Amino acid sequence: MRYMGLLETYKAYLPVGEATPMITLHEGNTPLIRAEKLSEQLGLNLYFKYEGLNPTGSFKDRGMVMAVAKAMEEGSRTIMCASTGNTSAAAAAYAARGGLNCIVLIPNNNIALGKMAQAMIYGAKVIAIEGNFDRALEIVREITAKHPITLVNSVNPYRIEGQKTAAFEVCEQLGAAPDYLAIPVGNAGNISAYWKGFKQYYEAGKVDKLPKMIGFEAEGAMAIVKGEPILEPETVATAIRIGNPASWKTAVEASQQSEGQINYVTDEQILSAYQLLAASEGVFAEPASAASLAGVIKLHQEGYFQGGESVVCVLTGNGLKDPNIAIKTAAVEPLVVPDTEEAVMDAIRKLEG
Amino acid sequence: MRYMGLLETYKAYLPVGEATPMITLHEGNTPLIRAEKLSEQLGLNLYFKYEGLNPTGSFKDRGMVMAVAKAMEEGSRTIMCASTGNTSAAAAAYAARGGLNCIVLIPNNNIALGKMAQAMIYGAKVIAIEGNFDRALEIVREITAKHPITLVNSVNPYRIEGQKTAAFEVCEQLGAAPDYLAIPVGNAGNISAYWKGFKQYYEAGKVDKLPKMIGFEAEGAMAIVKGEPILEPETVATAIRIGNPASWKTAVEASQQSEGQINYVTDEQILSAYQLLAASEGVFAEPASAASLAGVIKLHQEGYFQGGESVVCVLTGNGLKDPNIAIKTAAVEPLVVPDTEEAVMDAIRKLEG
Repeated sequence: MRYMGLLETYKAYLPVGEATPMITLHEGNTPLIRAEKLSEQLGLNLYFKYEGLNPTGSFKDRGMVMAVAKAMEEGSRTIMCASTGNTSAAAAAYAARGGLNCIVLIPNNNIALGKMAQAMIYGAKVIAIEGNFDRALEIVREITAKHPITLVNSVNPYRIEGQKTAAFEVCEQLGAAPDYLAIPVGNAGNISAYWKGFKQYYEAGKVDKLPKMIGFEAEGAMAIVKGEPILEPETVATAIRIGNPASWKTAVEASQQSEGQINYVTDEQILSAYQLLAASEGVFAEPASAASLAGVIKLHQEGYFQGGESVVCVLTGNGLKDPNIAIKTAAVEPLVVPDTEEAVMDAIRKLEG
Repeated sequence: MRYMGLLETYKAYLPVGEATPMITLHEGNTPLIRAEKLSEQLGLNLYFKYEGLNPTGSFKDRGMVMAVAKAMEEGSRTIMCASTGNTSAAAAAYAARGGLNCIVLIPNNNIALGKMAQAMIYGAKVIAIEGNFDRALEIVREITAKHPITLVNSVNPYRIEGQKTAAFEVCEQLGAAPDYLAIPVGNAGNISAYWKGFKQYYEAGKVDKLPKMIGFEAEGAMAIVKGEPILEPETVATAIRIGNPASWKTAVEASQQSEGQINYVTDEQILSAYQLLAASEGVFAEPASAASLAGVIKLHQEGYFQGGESVVCVLTGNGLKDPNIAIKTAAVEPLVVPDTEEAVMDAIRKLEG
């Protein structure tokens, strides 16, 4: 009855052996929430795979539990990554869980400390370099190539292995593969991982079809859509602000093999979907997450869907990760009134307009 | 296979009838995480019931789904509460889900807008009164007594009904009731709800014993421990900063009937447990949550436990709810170094001591 975490649940499909420590923070097992109002409005069977309810608040926990378990199996005492966001939080949490040291390298330019709060409370050691993010990643690669320190950035192949389990869960929760899997595309590892997971379940006879993979980049960071790296990517959806995706090739393969597509959405469309998700369906996800729903709305307007198809939108992270965007987006000062019943009732009538 | 939410899962134990709308954001089904290092250090079988992975990040979702479903069943179009924290977030999310209006009343004195960001993004209408929190609650009670607006503060009896389901889950996850249930005590509704749930499962023959209930107030707000209301409660654990608990009587009953106790912990003990949880076990909870672990450590030091007992600590909310406390607590500025492999390796060696 008790859920034992990803490694235990999916060990038959993961590089888990007898020597692999079965660490867990009960990552995975995240809700598949039906979109009640939007399903009706769009004429689809729309669902949200809400990855914000992973232990550190993003889908990165799936890949990190696998990467850290393998680091421990290999005898590593320290893991390392370059990250200013979700990756560092996940790395720090699983390092704490497994009793490893965690080193996080960040550029020393205007990183808000709030972004690093999570990694720091989990006990990661944060080092800021006098250089940019790309240089930080370069140094991480140099150091981990020479020293007994394990690289846990997305080039670590175990990350994708852990991440593919989200596709398994979608199939089990729906009782079938969906017709479409809509997903934000930044570094492009997640779309690659889902596709790998769907194919694996298909080959194992667990499902009898494959979904069309539809991925969405942010307009200001749409390297794959444009077909060239973006030197200075810019978007409100910081978690997908990536100009040269590490998993570019496998992401394109996923979209082509599945007869899906990689498309883009604007910041305006992202923020509009972000607000709609919370105010209409009661689901609070980080802005980058909303790229999947924004993309589905865009394709719906273009007549892409027939109607009635099952569509799963991946919501990659928890809205609590970025409260400032929520404040800016909701952006209404509370109405201030005297402390009488009448004054408050007047205000309620006004608000209900 | 697919989890369908609290109302569906536990309908046999809840005031759910044919006319009750089975709304859900997939609240509940939260992890029971074994404390690996602390179990060994304390000589206990220690677990965390991590309620921070509820959809709005706190245990309040359990009671709110029930309260909002009943409001809908009764034909209400609007719900209302006085709250500056977790209650308003939960109310706003379920109102959005159920298509109701949500009015949140707050005092107009120094409320950080960040605290209200969640309620606002879910679409709640926030009204600030020129008066304090008690006055806000008074006005909510007056208005909801006269108008067709449903009160969803903790005096709404359906809240406790929904909340008791956490006890059911603990029993199922452990395969038995634990020896001890350790829990933060603020308004004292949660300890009352767990006790009700454990008794109900015991009477139904689902478990063959009852746990001892051990509740912990914050020292600066220990009304029950002192036996009198605290006029100006003060503690870093804002979610339990309550001077006159609404469920005082039932909380005392729970501790007495179960042969447990209601005790207190200092802010220092809370913050120390808060940091230990994250850095040692990889679990990030809001400060009030850590009162349960702080209390267990305190009682352990006093020789309260025999050794080997199963103890479940309830962690009521997600650490992401209050990132500022994390920043203050972790409070180490990152080390800044030149962007060379050597400089970074020197820094790593220094950090690893």
